[in-house]
Amino acid sequence: MVTVNQIDGGVCAAKGFMAGAVRVGIKSSPANMPQNADADSLSDSFSEKKDLAIIYCANKCNAAALFTQNKVKAAPITISQNHIANGVAQAIIVNSGNANACTPDGMEVAIGMCKTTASNLGITPDDVIVASTGVIGQRLKLAPIECGVERLAKELSMTSAGSTNTAEAIMTTDTFPKECAVEFFIGDKRCAIGGITKGSGMIHPNMATMLSFITTDVVINSRLLEKALRNANEQTFNMISVDGDTSTNDMVCIMASGLAGNAEITDENSDEFKNFSFLLYSVMRSLARDIARDGEGATKLISCNVTGAGSFLTARNVSKSVISSNLVKTALSAADANWGRILCAIGYADGEFDISKVDVALSSDKGTITVCKDGAALKFSEVNASEILSADEITVNINLKSGNESATAYGCDLTSEYVKINAEYRT
Amino acid sequence: MVTVNQIDGGVCAAKGFMAGAVRVGIKSSPANMPQNADADSLSDSFSEKKDLAIIYCANKCNAAALFTQNKVKAAPITISQNHIANGVAQAIIVNSGNANACTPDGMEVAIGMCKTTASNLGITPDDVIVASTGVIGQRLKLAPIECGVERLAKELSMTSAGSTNTAEAIMTTDTFPKECAVEFFIGDKRCAIGGITKGSGMIHPNMATMLSFITTDVVINSRLLEKALRNANEQTFNMISVDGDTSTNDMVCIMASGLAGNAEITDENSDEFKNFSFLLYSVMRSLARDIARDGEGATKLISCNVTGAGSFLTARNVSKSVISSNLVKTALSAADANWGRILCAIGYADGEFDISKVDVALSSDKGTITVCKDGAALKFSEVNASEILSADEITVNINLKSGNESATAYGCDLTSEYVKINAEYRT
Repeated sequence: MVTVNQIDGGVCAAKGFMAGAVRVGIKSSPANMPQNADADSLSDSFSEKKDLAIIYCANKCNAAALFTQNKVKAAPITISQNHIANGVAQAIIVNSGNANACTPDGMEVAIGMCKTTASNLGITPDDVIVASTGVIGQRLKLAPIECGVERLAKELSMTSAGSTNTAEAIMTTDTFPKECAVEFFIGDKRCAIGGITKGSGMIHPNMATMLSFITTDVVINSRLLEKALRNANEQTFNMISVDGDTSTNDMVCIMASGLAGNAEITDENSDEFKNFSFLLYSVMRSLARDIARDGEGATKLISCNVTGAGSFLTARNVSKSVISSNLVKTALSAADANWGRILCAIGYADGEFDISKVDVALSSDKGTITVCKDGAALKFSEVNASEILSADEITVNINLKSGNESATAYGCDLTSEYVKINAEYRT
Repeated sequence: MVTVNQIDGGVCAAKGFMAGAVRVGIKSSPANMPQNADADSLSDSFSEKKDLAIIYCANKCNAAALFTQNKVKAAPITISQNHIANGVAQAIIVNSGNANACTPDGMEVAIGMCKTTASNLGITPDDVIVASTGVIGQRLKLAPIECGVERLAKELSMTSAGSTNTAEAIMTTDTFPKECAVEFFIGDKRCAIGGITKGSGMIHPNMATMLSFITTDVVINSRLLEKALRNANEQTFNMISVDGDTSTNDMVCIMASGLAGNAEITDENSDEFKNFSFLLYSVMRSLARDIARDGEGATKLISCNVTGAGSFLTARNVSKSVISSNLVKTALSAADANWGRILCAIGYADGEFDISKVDVALSSDKGTITVCKDGAALKFSEVNASEILSADEITVNINLKSGNESATAYGCDLTSEYVKINAEYRT
């Protein structure tokens, strides 16, 4: 194994990357906006609500990305799929507050965002990845974005602040910015992988999640970069659910600057590739957990750890079924060990297992309690259970006792605040 | 077509059926119950919380039933599956407040409920169907049920009150009892079909719903009775969702006393069978809509009507996807025409269609407004839309414009009250 350090810096941790963000006024509803304000004064008066960001590398990067499987795809998804097809990218332009989905001129706007980014950075539009997040079905105006990009291109930073500003700019109903980075060595070359992401509603990813951008300076070809991304994604972003709704704008994208100076990774059986894959998984897992923890209205991170499954698919389906159940989520919100709902959610998951063998235990940093043995009730102290479930992070441990495969899914509790946020989202 | 009248009487509308309910103290938590109270005094002091009911026919009935597809099946489901296997039944015993699921002695209790019902009614235990609904994983005590059945057997009524008491006794978090009955003629013979049902959480049926009991006096064999039940079920109970959780106790059961005196229905191509099937569908549709309308915390009935689909499966999947989406449900709760969420939910449904052809309109008794044409935004008045969505019953009309099949699904809005009910369910 390699030695790994968690470090600051997010998407700017790896060599060669710069990032930055500004406010151009997309996030507020038109009714709340000063009608004649220009981009600069908006930026000053609403500086806490950045909504446009760029991640940029001075050289062309090998790159890979995964996109939503929703049949309704936002315009930037289609454009980015085209631009990533050659396995090369150099910049990402992203806005929040408007999804640029299901509008008549969405494609033109997404193409325009790539063009203005490319011309201001002196690169080609085909090497720009574009992403959007926010309200679906409202027109996104290009002109303010063009003004914003012009300013932004001069203000990009390779410091931690550049990454944090970008992580903040992609937030919608998120309550905190989500960053993660690690450093490690390949031979004597110091390498880094870092990323940012955002949630926090319409989160039930299928092949990718809302938005996540990852950078590395490792020298690795595009094919293996995609393979590592895809494998890690199956166990991280595809294992979270906030509300069961798969978004139209999901995207996870990785860019590798190749500036670490290691010998290029080209063999998928090499230790270097295995280590890189594992560390990419670690970074993405950290970001995915942050999304679940910060689910709309959530007060708790709920992990569901399924062991003893006959196949990974069964383990995955069972764990996702449990963390997706509204009834499990509301019970855990109230620290109520209503394990019958957990067993019920196990029961309607797709997979092969014998329910009369299933054990269920609940754990947190306050202890562990077994609530169900061989599919039937166990006597347990409700007081102890409630104490354990009062923690901020809860794990539901399920042993199917029918094999050796396992999987962990990540979700959050369901609270009245979720309803409030989503009833008022457009107002 | 036959002439049909809606009538009172629920499960007592058809000739030969009697029903009644008592309180035996299952519904309250042990902490709130007087420790030494006997069944009679409980029944008087808590008469508004009936929790045990019987539906009975003086003669043996042809019968059919459908059960939950959840791998976790409550004990009464297993016992009732055995008892219905011969296509004959004569009584139904049902309790609320405890699901009799996932406990070590659940089977014994379910068998005991059938035995005590049979001995008090003078019939055989194999002809008794048993059902339970309530908390999962808590032991159900047989002794109070035995006392209750003894009283109940003497108090059964063939009046409307017998049906209404039964409909009330099976309620858990339901806010109103759910009954429906129709009368019609086969030849010169007056026939009736009536039913009761209950919701209102853990409602996402798969082959059956929480609990529904239907009676008829039509002369019809068991095979055709099951066929009619299965067909109607696919378009009614299997088309509703309150919270996406498929229960461990779902059951719909129909009993035919054969007392109407019509010539026995034995030909599935006959007009009589087609009419019977359609009327059974009408009764079950009415009950299913009541479940959706009375979903936990719900303030609105939401129907999603999908037309122009290439197949019934596509129409079904799209309509169920829309009414199951937490984000659609919260938006409609606030009368917000956030149609982007509707399009998003269409997009992640399984099925074949071209999203760029899809039209979406919202309607209620206050009008209709088209919000999306050919998959893209239309200009519409938010004020008008909000007025239309302020109604108690809302229909989301989706035309996929890729075929001639259609389906309608029924759901409800998602409110803070849902969260409150389910956080506090066991307290």
